[in-house]
Amino acid sequence: MAVTLAIDCMGGDHGPSVTVPAALEFLTQDASARVILVGLEESIKPHLKGAAAYGERLVIRHASEVVGMDEAVASAMRNKKDSSMRVVADLVKDGTADAAISAGNTGALMAISRFVLKTLPGIDRPAIATILPNPKGKTYMLDLGANVDCEPEHLLQFGIMGAMLVSALEHKDNPSVGLLNIGEEDIKGNEVVKRAGELLRESGLNFYGNVEGNDIYKGTTDVVVCDGFVGNVALKTSEGLAQMIIGGLREEFKRSLLSKLAALVAMPVLNAFKRRFDHRRYNGASLLGLRGIVLKSHGSADVLAFRCALERAAEAARNKLPERIAAHIASHHMAQGTSV
Amino acid sequence: MAVTLAIDCMGGDHGPSVTVPAALEFLTQDASARVILVGLEESIKPHLKGAAAYGERLVIRHASEVVGMDEAVASAMRNKKDSSMRVVADLVKDGTADAAISAGNTGALMAISRFVLKTLPGIDRPAIATILPNPKGKTYMLDLGANVDCEPEHLLQFGIMGAMLVSALEHKDNPSVGLLNIGEEDIKGNEVVKRAGELLRESGLNFYGNVEGNDIYKGTTDVVVCDGFVGNVALKTSEGLAQMIIGGLREEFKRSLLSKLAALVAMPVLNAFKRRFDHRRYNGASLLGLRGIVLKSHGSADVLAFRCALERAAEAARNKLPERIAAHIASHHMAQGTSV
Repeated sequence: MAVTLAIDCMGGDHGPSVTVPAALEFLTQDASARVILVGLEESIKPHLKGAAAYGERLVIRHASEVVGMDEAVASAMRNKKDSSMRVVADLVKDGTADAAISAGNTGALMAISRFVLKTLPGIDRPAIATILPNPKGKTYMLDLGANVDCEPEHLLQFGIMGAMLVSALEHKDNPSVGLLNIGEEDIKGNEVVKRAGELLRESGLNFYGNVEGNDIYKGTTDVVVCDGFVGNVALKTSEGLAQMIIGGLREEFKRSLLSKLAALVAMPVLNAFKRRFDHRRYNGASLLGLRGIVLKSHGSADVLAFRCALERAAEAARNKLPERIAAHIASHHMAQGTSV
Repeated sequence: MAVTLAIDCMGGDHGPSVTVPAALEFLTQDASARVILVGLEESIKPHLKGAAAYGERLVIRHASEVVGMDEAVASAMRNKKDSSMRVVADLVKDGTADAAISAGNTGALMAISRFVLKTLPGIDRPAIATILPNPKGKTYMLDLGANVDCEPEHLLQFGIMGAMLVSALEHKDNPSVGLLNIGEEDIKGNEVVKRAGELLRESGLNFYGNVEGNDIYKGTTDVVVCDGFVGNVALKTSEGLAQMIIGGLREEFKRSLLSKLAALVAMPVLNAFKRRFDHRRYNGASLLGLRGIVLKSHGSADVLAFRCALERAAEAARNKLPERIAAHIASHHMAQGTSV
């Protein structure tokens, strides 16, 4: 199915030097895809070597402004109506593109996307879902920081959105959903989580029940639901631990001539391990609950990582992710006898 | 300084086969320490080989009941007044012992300790503090699950208790305290955390400000403060990720004859790495805010790990941890012009 991606070429730590080559690789791979490269034309053009081959499948849309990685959300929203980030959202809104992708400032991307696209009926707040590795495949976790004070109803909506995301991207019919909670016998979580568990149990989703932090990396469920504060802490803690472990291993292998020799021998194994959990292949966090598809790439993404986010966006568009979410929310409300 | 530890020999996955040998090793190491081995005498005795050498430094106190690892807290509290867990708390309460250590059920240990020892003046809720590795040393994090719905004042008290714990165990005069928060520019945490930040800033502690999940493993601050829900998720997520990484490495090294050979060569390096982050050396979570010292060992602790918890308990007793906390809380209230 033909699909058109609107790519914010200016976002991320590397800007067009990463986003444009990734877009070209993506076009080579996906013969029925089209891209609209959005940003400062003079910054994009130097990276377009070989782009003529794609003909009309590649279009440049000049946008005169750029949202800074640390720019305040309010300033990005109010003062930069021709930013590349704003334009990709506008292109989804007016139907020119099927999905928007940006590696820019998360807060600004969420605020702009929400302002331009609006939320789906029955969704109170959009959420951010990320993908984490587990030994069996992938765990989808949301929310990742968009919502810090959540009501039980929000966690229910996250569950529905997460399940629809997995069904769209992984082609699983009835993905399992876990509610992130704590494990002590007689402490079964805070009041919000307890009530959210009841709502999820009655939701018609394939609700597994409570899961704990370690279940994220065991792959106990396809989806893990939590509020944005907890999700952000879990994600950042994981990043910190992974960095410490990898840094520690690297140091040990560099300690002496003998250990450097061991590193040489072990290199193919260590590389195989690295490939297996390569975080670049998990790049592309979904902004869910909007009337349109928006993906956030990691700011530090390289060409491979950014291309993975583009592939994910195309997959979400082909599988009509927002429509799936809207339909599930509507049928949920129908079953509950409430109106959206 | 002479110190007496009351050891619950029955708790944990391995019971006396781990706790008793660990106690003997501890006595060998620490010439001015005494231990009271509490539990079923007939279960303890078979593990006492060589114990005669310690003379009066080793005492057995028979306790006729055992709290099960999955036993409900209410049942452990009400029906088992002669459990080894209850008796170690009683021994601290009546001044016979300077600290209690158990590898049993965390919920029951907290409930019994709180019931027997009571909280210190000015402490609303006891908390559980654990130790995590960082490249420079140790990060102390609390709360770990005792308190799921926290007020800002509780987080302030956790900050004070954590700082006193580090001063007692690490001999640091003015340990730095960070408040676990999330990193997005325009979302500075939920309401409770925002207010807790204000209280910590005015507290006279060496307050660093907000930290993020990755700072735990960077060692940005000596103490990381969070509510029990978030702390438990961060800890369990870390356990899950570490297991996945280690399991993945192991699998890759076992994949082929060549990779097995590589493993052989890399073994000394991998072992050095393992020693460096050996979680057993971080064993011994402190139950803080009580009128007495109670340490919780991991249930799966082996002899080395349990001995580390005993060493930590002795250190806390020698450095008068509860008195330090009480004094700091009192001076804080004096500075604020409030009564305890």
